Amino acid sequence: MTTAQYDVLGIGNAIFDILVKTDDAFLAAHGMSKGAMALIDEARASAVYQAMGPATEISGGSAANTIVGVADFGARAAYIGKVKNDQIGNLYTHDIRAAKVAFDTPPAASGPATGCSYILVTPDGERTMNTYLGAAQDLTPADIDEAKIAASKIVYLEGYLWDPKSAKEAFVKAAKIAHDNGRMVALTLSDAFCVGRYRAEFLDLMRGRTVDLIFANEAELTSLYETQDFDKALTQLRDDATLGVVTRSEKGCVVATRDSVTPVPAFPVSQVVDTTGAGDLFAAGFLFGLVRGFTHEEAGRLGALAAAEVIQHIGARPQTSLKVLAQQHGLSV
Amino acid sequence: MTTAQYDVLGIGNAIFDILVKTDDAFLAAHGMSKGAMALIDEARASAVYQAMGPATEISGGSAANTIVGVADFGARAAYIGKVKNDQIGNLYTHDIRAAKVAFDTPPAASGPATGCSYILVTPDGERTMNTYLGAAQDLTPADIDEAKIAASKIVYLEGYLWDPKSAKEAFVKAAKIAHDNGRMVALTLSDAFCVGRYRAEFLDLMRGRTVDLIFANEAELTSLYETQDFDKALTQLRDDATLGVVTRSEKGCVVATRDSVTPVPAFPVSQVVDTTGAGDLFAAGFLFGLVRGFTHEEAGRLGALAAAEVIQHIGARPQTSLKVLAQQHGLSV
Repeated sequence: MTTAQYDVLGIGNAIFDILVKTDDAFLAAHGMSKGAMALIDEARASAVYQAMGPATEISGGSAANTIVGVADFGARAAYIGKVKNDQIGNLYTHDIRAAKVAFDTPPAASGPATGCSYILVTPDGERTMNTYLGAAQDLTPADIDEAKIAASKIVYLEGYLWDPKSAKEAFVKAAKIAHDNGRMVALTLSDAFCVGRYRAEFLDLMRGRTVDLIFANEAELTSLYETQDFDKALTQLRDDATLGVVTRSEKGCVVATRDSVTPVPAFPVSQVVDTTGAGDLFAAGFLFGLVRGFTHEEAGRLGALAAAEVIQHIGARPQTSLKVLAQQHGLSV
Repeated sequence: MTTAQYDVLGIGNAIFDILVKTDDAFLAAHGMSKGAMALIDEARASAVYQAMGPATEISGGSAANTIVGVADFGARAAYIGKVKNDQIGNLYTHDIRAAKVAFDTPPAASGPATGCSYILVTPDGERTMNTYLGAAQDLTPADIDEAKIAASKIVYLEGYLWDPKSAKEAFVKAAKIAHDNGRMVALTLSDAFCVGRYRAEFLDLMRGRTVDLIFANEAELTSLYETQDFDKALTQLRDDATLGVVTRSEKGCVVATRDSVTPVPAFPVSQVVDTTGAGDLFAAGFLFGLVRGFTHEEAGRLGALAAAEVIQHIGARPQTSLKVLAQQHGLSV
């Protein structure tokens, strides 16, 4: 195993977020499942956007948000994801590179536009996502940069990659390269409905040790094991993953291995403005903690800290330096 | 004079804002004049953007921000401005229409991209703008919708329109139509440097009664009359404009006519996050007050209320209902 050039490399659907504050009636009127990510086609995207109020745009994409968070903590980060060579793709590319993330996936020159998620934020801060994958559908195994994967301590993959048709092959290719080079492979389960679509495949990835570290929230975990019993689901996770981290909103998180279960509290937040990116930024803090050699509890606290930052403003990218926040909380190296 | 279909119609440079938090050192390193609007070409835009951190995008444009504010207070509003038929132009068009503003200016099918302003926000909340006019340069007298102008109680124009080569002709055409139909014409002086570029022409517009109502901040007013003496400048304004409104940041504003000078305090704000749009939203509140028949003092308070809302978050478009805010402050009809 050579010295790693990157601490964490993420692979995901590169998605530009179009966010608007709305109310529960809007979700109901448009048949949206609150808190979930729904895949939509171009026609539905157009209809949803037409109905939405004035928006704010910020680069997003689950794994990309995580990787930007990792870089913001001060670690070396890289990203693989597909945009189109269009105006929105250019904004996206700027933002991730400006966040000091190595990003060199060639943009699509033709085909669908850069992917967008139409995100409705209700007064309780909950976000409901309608994602048009667009160019993210064109991520293929050819986009997997073998040298970069081999040179990254952790490869972080999002469950959402199971949606575009060839991205799962890219995913599996990346995981194999990582393991062949003695690296760790992490997976976030992404969304309870996504777990519903790919439950068997996700369990295969875990049980076949294609992935080592699993991130999930409570809904995703209980969906994975088709139970309402959290403790039962957690026990199964401890069998199926080398390391599992389950986030529980204001109840904090649980870090679980075969030998230990470590609960970590959430950071108190005065007002939840927009939960978009909460799980992504939690993962950023946890991964940063792992690569810096923190304990599981400290890594969980770093995750909680980053999640608390991101839910206090619109958008899934940090607006306050996570490195400085970590220092302020005695969590720097 | 027929019954008005619109309360206020705005004409301005349609500009998409790309905002980033930065520090004073960045402004200095890139030779930017803090607090000002600098016009930049495509090459400079590319260089500035390359140097900027990860951004947030929100539709902007001075008069457009004002008109969105007017609509948000509950008045009937329309806008004329030029975008290109590109991705950013489509975002722009969505946002202004979603704010319930009538917007039908045909987008440019060729030529430069939709205009963008690269806005640097320093920790004190001050914004420094670098504007690439793009398609806004292609606004011409042909875009002036005569029927809409004739049907608007107030036509509101931005001084920035003097920058694109043919927009000033559009401006003068619109003002003439408005006056021929017994409507009021308002002008914001926009920016102290803009006043420096077009001082003589702005004074001609005022003294020739092409415009009736002038909005300015202190720096613009003192630049207009080339004096450091505010009271002297205000006296001159009272000669040159039927109605003048001068904003003075945390000191509030002064509403001046030949016969009266009415000072109005600012609304207290706990934290100034981003002053982008402060003047634009002040104008929105004041114009709303005027068309609803409020006193000058009340109109000034409505302006102060809207300005206070917009400086407490990133971006120049309101995030809280101005109609509800006005009701909460006893300023509804």
